[in-house]
Amino acid sequence: MVDIATRVHNHKWKIDPIVRSLIDTDFYKLLMCQSIFRNRPDTQVTFSLINRSTHVPLADLVDEGELREQLDHIRSLSLSRGESTWLRGNTFYGKRQMFTSEFMEWFEALRLPPYHLERVGDQYELTFEGSWPEVMLWEIPALAVLMELRSRAVLNKMRKFELQVLYARAMTKLWEKVERLRDVPGLRVADFGTRRRHSFLWQDWCVQAMTEGLGQKFVGTSNCLIAKNRDVAAIGTNAHELPMVYAALADSDAELARAPYDVLSDWHEEHDGNLRIILPDTYGTEGFLKNAPDWLAGWTGMRIDSGDPATGAERAINWWKSRGEDPTEKLIIFSDGLDVDKIASLQAQFSGRARVSFGWGTLLTNDFRGLTPDDALAPFSLVCKAVSANGRPTVKLSDNPRKAMGPEAEIARYKRVFGVGKQEALEVVV
Amino acid sequence: MVDIATRVHNHKWKIDPIVRSLIDTDFYKLLMCQSIFRNRPDTQVTFSLINRSTHVPLADLVDEGELREQLDHIRSLSLSRGESTWLRGNTFYGKRQMFTSEFMEWFEALRLPPYHLERVGDQYELTFEGSWPEVMLWEIPALAVLMELRSRAVLNKMRKFELQVLYARAMTKLWEKVERLRDVPGLRVADFGTRRRHSFLWQDWCVQAMTEGLGQKFVGTSNCLIAKNRDVAAIGTNAHELPMVYAALADSDAELARAPYDVLSDWHEEHDGNLRIILPDTYGTEGFLKNAPDWLAGWTGMRIDSGDPATGAERAINWWKSRGEDPTEKLIIFSDGLDVDKIASLQAQFSGRARVSFGWGTLLTNDFRGLTPDDALAPFSLVCKAVSANGRPTVKLSDNPRKAMGPEAEIARYKRVFGVGKQEALEVVV
Repeated sequence: MVDIATRVHNHKWKIDPIVRSLIDTDFYKLLMCQSIFRNRPDTQVTFSLINRSTHVPLADLVDEGELREQLDHIRSLSLSRGESTWLRGNTFYGKRQMFTSEFMEWFEALRLPPYHLERVGDQYELTFEGSWPEVMLWEIPALAVLMELRSRAVLNKMRKFELQVLYARAMTKLWEKVERLRDVPGLRVADFGTRRRHSFLWQDWCVQAMTEGLGQKFVGTSNCLIAKNRDVAAIGTNAHELPMVYAALADSDAELARAPYDVLSDWHEEHDGNLRIILPDTYGTEGFLKNAPDWLAGWTGMRIDSGDPATGAERAINWWKSRGEDPTEKLIIFSDGLDVDKIASLQAQFSGRARVSFGWGTLLTNDFRGLTPDDALAPFSLVCKAVSANGRPTVKLSDNPRKAMGPEAEIARYKRVFGVGKQEALEVVV
Repeated sequence: MVDIATRVHNHKWKIDPIVRSLIDTDFYKLLMCQSIFRNRPDTQVTFSLINRSTHVPLADLVDEGELREQLDHIRSLSLSRGESTWLRGNTFYGKRQMFTSEFMEWFEALRLPPYHLERVGDQYELTFEGSWPEVMLWEIPALAVLMELRSRAVLNKMRKFELQVLYARAMTKLWEKVERLRDVPGLRVADFGTRRRHSFLWQDWCVQAMTEGLGQKFVGTSNCLIAKNRDVAAIGTNAHELPMVYAALADSDAELARAPYDVLSDWHEEHDGNLRIILPDTYGTEGFLKNAPDWLAGWTGMRIDSGDPATGAERAINWWKSRGEDPTEKLIIFSDGLDVDKIASLQAQFSGRARVSFGWGTLLTNDFRGLTPDDALAPFSLVCKAVSANGRPTVKLSDNPRKAMGPEAEIARYKRVFGVGKQEALEVVV
């Protein structure tokens, strides 16, 4: 029996919206948003889309009209009652509310600010300007929309049967990864793949596969909407945008040198436990740890997001030891360019020497490599970053110079201020 | 939107019938049925189910009540108007009707005769007795029901997500086979997998995969219902049951020796072109060809269904040459235990030396090997054969002694009459 009503209803859709909820975003964006809302609400920022994979001609693949429709749809979204209830219900270990009433009232009234879109060559220039807490919420939906429109551009040329085989293959591929991870003793892994996912439905399926296949080894997803719908934990802490904007706002080299610690000082007041995770690499991990105040050594853990991950973890363990801390009680979160081999070897190397956890991103939710003849669905490296704050350019150095960004003169200044020397360049896969 | 009507309707089903049509059977059964209906309609036969894979305890796996429900359902089936129209419309190269009006009238009135089912140890004894043209139509549905009930017994223990991954893997596995076959030059392959399929829906999917993936290289299916529904050609000619029953009916050794040729003489009168395919191995190919009348050498081709296939094909080519025929105009159909490797190598070996075609069976429609942890869905070797005719036992020798059947004394007599010497035993995979 055909449900005629459903079929007729489906054909009334003007578009098939990619992002259908303001909480279809990473949990840490909301935590950071609240911190910004409290500490730096009036900062004016510009976020900008950057396609590091210039061989992918986004503007040729994705129709500008469709892109505008998707972005306009996101601007029409507001928090639903159920979403608000879910956010308000999030607690620290069942005790204190994670989001304050002041923040929730502001968020409930929020619509995302305008965007600026222009075609430049075979790429899009997509920028967002305005107050920091509003503009920063564009990052994840903007990335997710572009990634999925690119997927759709490829999928539109495929026939019904090819599509079925494509997803059968993708499911098989992912399930083989899940089965390999199942055999990794003591594993704790979360989905960090929202921003560069193949599509929303695929990420949703990946989370179900991890839940079914890994049981307690799957600790949650960074995606709030999926966490809410699939009844799993929402996972995340903080990211580079905080030190990048704080640094850009610094009025002197001395203030600049202090900026990354000011960020964590603000965070320290608001959060404890598993949310106290150091992200040390924005301006070079080595200098950051050497100059870190003693109270930071008491934090729960550290996230390794660039450079060689094993080197980063060894450095973290040595640093904790040098500050009189017991590394076996500390949490190391690996989150850069992970796939099953790397996860298994890092777990083997550091299990027992620290608590270890993995934030698995693009190669969880978008590993369509090898599934189409011309590899047209392979993931690529798209980011959306704060590029200026109150009119000043932002800078990121990272532990991998290929992930650095900012004007050359400013990069040189930051390197001097933060005492960053020679860095090893590593390929950025995704 | 849930279609409440569909959902309520689904829950009204007493059973989920496996065989839902009398033409969910192999095309050659209907061709043979018509020949029997014309030439030997009053022969009384017994068909019996034989599980060659005794390690599969069918009676432990499959509930007797469910089996009876499925068999009873098949007995309630009759030819629908559309099915009758499709059969009546089948023509030889667009000219003469393939099924006569007399046969169609008889078939339209047919219901399958009773069955006898008994549990013996961990196996079922399932037999069918009555007039040959009626009883012989039980073969394929009986096998398909038992194969699918065994699949269901395994699938019933799996959760929704496991099922989704299982079929994703099976689809991926089959599609990889299709992609390999796509690269085999000049390939012509048909689906012969009805009798030992994983399930009806899976066979139906396999046919769609072959259609989509192989285009003109996929020449059709032996399954009439799927041929009708999916608009592809129905493929098939004749099988061992004809010589086996004719032989059992022979009153003397001389008549016995002539029986296999009597079969083909009757067939010769009814069919021409691609339906004139010799199946030479029932009582040993070597003797059969040596003693064959000259008019048989004029037939279109030969089906190689036991023994080493390359040896069989070489023997066929040499025989045609010795009878003054041009082998490059002859059709060799391989149909025994095929999978992609064997298909590709046989095609490479015989392409250009004869017209080559493949009837791909169990490893097309039931290759679930390796897809469950304990391999509980691996195909097994179930057959349903004529075991007696007018009270006399039937015998099959085959070119592989492991496929032989019949009482020992009769096998010895047949070997003597047909001059069968030493045979090479080959493993029967499926």
